[in-house]
Amino acid sequence: MDVYRVIRRYSVVFLLAVSLKNVVSTPVSQFSMARKLTSALYKDDYMQKRQHIISDEQDQRLGGEIVLNKDEQAVNDKLLKLKQTEIDNAHYQGKPFGPAMNFLKSKSVYEESQIFKLIQTMPKGGALHVHDCSISDIKWLVKNVTYRDNCYMCYDLKNEISFQFFQTPPVNKDCPWKPVGQYRQQSGNVSHFDDTLIKSMILTGEYADLDINTIWQRFEGILTRANGLINYKPVFSDYYYEALREFNEDNVQYVEVRALLPEVYELDGSTLNTQQVMQIYKDTTDRFLATNKNFTGAKIIKTNLRFKSPDDILDDIKNSIQLMQQFPDHFAGYDLVGQEDPGKTLLYYIDALRYPSLQSPPIKLPYFFHAGETDWQGTRVDDNLIDAVLLNTSRIGHGYALPKHPEVMKIVRQQDIAIEVNPISNQVLKLVDDMQNHPGSVLLAEGLPVVISSDDPAVWGAKGLSYDFYAAFMALSGKDDGLEVLKQLAMNSLIYSALEDKKKVQALKDWEEKWKTFIDKTVGQMNGSILIG
Amino acid sequence: MDVYRVIRRYSVVFLLAVSLKNVVSTPVSQFSMARKLTSALYKDDYMQKRQHIISDEQDQRLGGEIVLNKDEQAVNDKLLKLKQTEIDNAHYQGKPFGPAMNFLKSKSVYEESQIFKLIQTMPKGGALHVHDCSISDIKWLVKNVTYRDNCYMCYDLKNEISFQFFQTPPVNKDCPWKPVGQYRQQSGNVSHFDDTLIKSMILTGEYADLDINTIWQRFEGILTRANGLINYKPVFSDYYYEALREFNEDNVQYVEVRALLPEVYELDGSTLNTQQVMQIYKDTTDRFLATNKNFTGAKIIKTNLRFKSPDDILDDIKNSIQLMQQFPDHFAGYDLVGQEDPGKTLLYYIDALRYPSLQSPPIKLPYFFHAGETDWQGTRVDDNLIDAVLLNTSRIGHGYALPKHPEVMKIVRQQDIAIEVNPISNQVLKLVDDMQNHPGSVLLAEGLPVVISSDDPAVWGAKGLSYDFYAAFMALSGKDDGLEVLKQLAMNSLIYSALEDKKKVQALKDWEEKWKTFIDKTVGQMNGSILIG
Repeated sequence: MDVYRVIRRYSVVFLLAVSLKNVVSTPVSQFSMARKLTSALYKDDYMQKRQHIISDEQDQRLGGEIVLNKDEQAVNDKLLKLKQTEIDNAHYQGKPFGPAMNFLKSKSVYEESQIFKLIQTMPKGGALHVHDCSISDIKWLVKNVTYRDNCYMCYDLKNEISFQFFQTPPVNKDCPWKPVGQYRQQSGNVSHFDDTLIKSMILTGEYADLDINTIWQRFEGILTRANGLINYKPVFSDYYYEALREFNEDNVQYVEVRALLPEVYELDGSTLNTQQVMQIYKDTTDRFLATNKNFTGAKIIKTNLRFKSPDDILDDIKNSIQLMQQFPDHFAGYDLVGQEDPGKTLLYYIDALRYPSLQSPPIKLPYFFHAGETDWQGTRVDDNLIDAVLLNTSRIGHGYALPKHPEVMKIVRQQDIAIEVNPISNQVLKLVDDMQNHPGSVLLAEGLPVVISSDDPAVWGAKGLSYDFYAAFMALSGKDDGLEVLKQLAMNSLIYSALEDKKKVQALKDWEEKWKTFIDKTVGQMNGSILIG
Repeated sequence: MDVYRVIRRYSVVFLLAVSLKNVVSTPVSQFSMARKLTSALYKDDYMQKRQHIISDEQDQRLGGEIVLNKDEQAVNDKLLKLKQTEIDNAHYQGKPFGPAMNFLKSKSVYEESQIFKLIQTMPKGGALHVHDCSISDIKWLVKNVTYRDNCYMCYDLKNEISFQFFQTPPVNKDCPWKPVGQYRQQSGNVSHFDDTLIKSMILTGEYADLDINTIWQRFEGILTRANGLINYKPVFSDYYYEALREFNEDNVQYVEVRALLPEVYELDGSTLNTQQVMQIYKDTTDRFLATNKNFTGAKIIKTNLRFKSPDDILDDIKNSIQLMQQFPDHFAGYDLVGQEDPGKTLLYYIDALRYPSLQSPPIKLPYFFHAGETDWQGTRVDDNLIDAVLLNTSRIGHGYALPKHPEVMKIVRQQDIAIEVNPISNQVLKLVDDMQNHPGSVLLAEGLPVVISSDDPAVWGAKGLSYDFYAAFMALSGKDDGLEVLKQLAMNSLIYSALEDKKKVQALKDWEEKWKTFIDKTVGQMNGSILIG
């Protein structure tokens, strides 16, 4: 077990100590123990054996080791009452169940849920799997960024929009540039025009029935369009700042962003190198931290696209090693991104990816590989899970195919590798329809170290982590699994972060404070009957 | 471990001995070993470790212990080539992949597959999970049964059809009976009229998007309608005979039918008791065996509906014990049926279900419980899995929720309890959309004793076991899993059957003969280039 893993374990021990302080000797939660309160039926051995199986499964489940204190139990009672009502309404009355429907059509169902609203106020720790250009509200991008000077747009022959900032736009025959403001003025209806721009950069309900490849095309088209706005230097910093602001507002205290470090451009068309882009991330994080003292911070996982040549990836790995040395506090590691099914495999890049570890002395470049984001068992893509663990990945991005790989599961358990589960992303991008069939439920039941993240929330109109936490809580955990699951998921997101030892401990302490405030406030509201429906 | 389990284990040993006779020392199969043939890449330790994980997963997978002989390897090479082509076409070219689409819309995609055609010719052993009134082709029911004398039908106020045989039909105001022949004659288009009758008794593509409760309603309506025809005494026997004929034609040599033993009626309206209905099953099986010497036989698993009162079930259990004694060769055991989600739980009937084991001396009434046919984790329905194993179920029907229950999984493994997986049923009845998300893939990867069955094939226009075997092979096993999976699934269906020791050994011997013939024939066809695409 390397130092990195030891830190994680250490953090768990630390957290346990913090938690134990709060333990009081009250009876177990009324609702989480609903299945346990069958004493009247304890006629004989049968019911004891039955209880044994139920308890064993509850204990080993993610969060099963957590002991709730009295106030937490009060919140949990309320939470489970709400959960059981929502599930019964769907299970027996056929009412809409958000996670069973495509998120592009069910977002409003989430938002009507009292549980969702509670989760929004809950300190959720860190977002460990999100991408650089899909984390700030598209509405902000349109209402703020497209109103800036020098912002141009054009319609191509297919009537698709592109954006770019220019001092003076070049001639562009098939897509002639005009100032956005001019289009807006000519539209005659500013609000409708802006809505058109927003719609051009999100996936909406009409895309819910597309097949996986078509929706990925649309998704990547959206990212390209948004990048025309985002990659303009002044916007680039503001976009990232806005992301930190939105995550913070959603009670997420820490973010690890997978970032391509793209060619950020100036008005004159000149571009920045990756070092300069990293510097913007660092400066912006510092700028945000200056006025948000409760925020833990942010780190960058450098990414590249999984269709580049092995030579390109090797160059990028070498450059990443330099970045890691130049930005020791802000650079977390490396990953490959893009649709995994048609993309090149980790094995295809094996020489480049093993380059750091084969140096003398070996260089430790932490990996955070996307792997197993596929439905196709036994394919070369599916095998990415094997290479991810053999390449000592610190965490696995998605790991959707993991339960089909019992040996990789074993290694993940032994080496305590966290799985970054992004339920809404997997649904919108067509790995699964009803989230109750998401394999994350198996990972949670098996008690593997899962963290919940949101991947590209802005693209499907989500924000922060709350939507994915709600989906995971309602569809990946059982009807009788309560606050302990949410608490463990939040704790995991810091425990399995790339934070250094000392900072991780501080982040967990800060989170514990936030958690206490959240519990106190919720209990207060419950006593004031605000939450009690 | 009880005698029943010992027999199973014994059978495995027996089968292994049979298999070993055929082993010849040829190189391992070209295609199944595709992932193993990476010797050029064996630069160092990395590729060895990688191979180790792949091999470990291959070995523990269902079928992983099977060693193919030379001829089987030749068939396997061809099979895997076909499989890999079909999967690549879907995975990379976006061509239709049957198991990813609702079967009500994709049946023709199955039928175009060369693999499906090969599976049709393959001896598949036994069908261990099928229901009494949904196993013979609806076309036969219409083209044969509705043409018989005394067959009446009516349209109710909702224009829904009912059928019944009468000497003289009673007055039935809201649904006036008329001879089917009269309607047929008046229709002016016999072929179109018959198609309407067929459509009234099957689920078609237009039902693919219904929600789970609505499709179950439609499904149960269909069964009720068909029962009007099936439960007429002369038809009852013929219907069952036709089922045996169709399964036999699909190269299934043995059937265990979950049967309600309904009120079979005579023309005068009098009805038979359950003993008499069992006698019809026995006599019909004997009649079929008389002219089909290669057929192993059939057994009945008595069922009742999971919305009856506990007293009704207790009476039924007592009656079942009598039936078991009266029909020792034909009565296999007991089960509860009907949509599991809204139905009563096993725990609800616990006193009735424990009645046999609490007698002195205990009575062994074998159970074959439906359990875990739900998407709803942590519900009282979901807990049926726990009660099923505690009630010593011989097999589990569906077990769809099993991977969410690690402790029940352990017991299933330890006690060698087979899981009857019915992939198409689970898809049509709305537990899962893309079958690649069916949890059966986890059960196969974990090497649990899975058998594949077809539940109610006639209702969705399937026949025998071939459609479900194809679905399982293509969607629940990996791209590189070949003939060994199909062979093990076929063997499991006899090993985990309710056949008595001696008959089981004979059935396996007979199957081995059929298997050899199948392999020889397939190799012959391959050499004659018939199969080689």
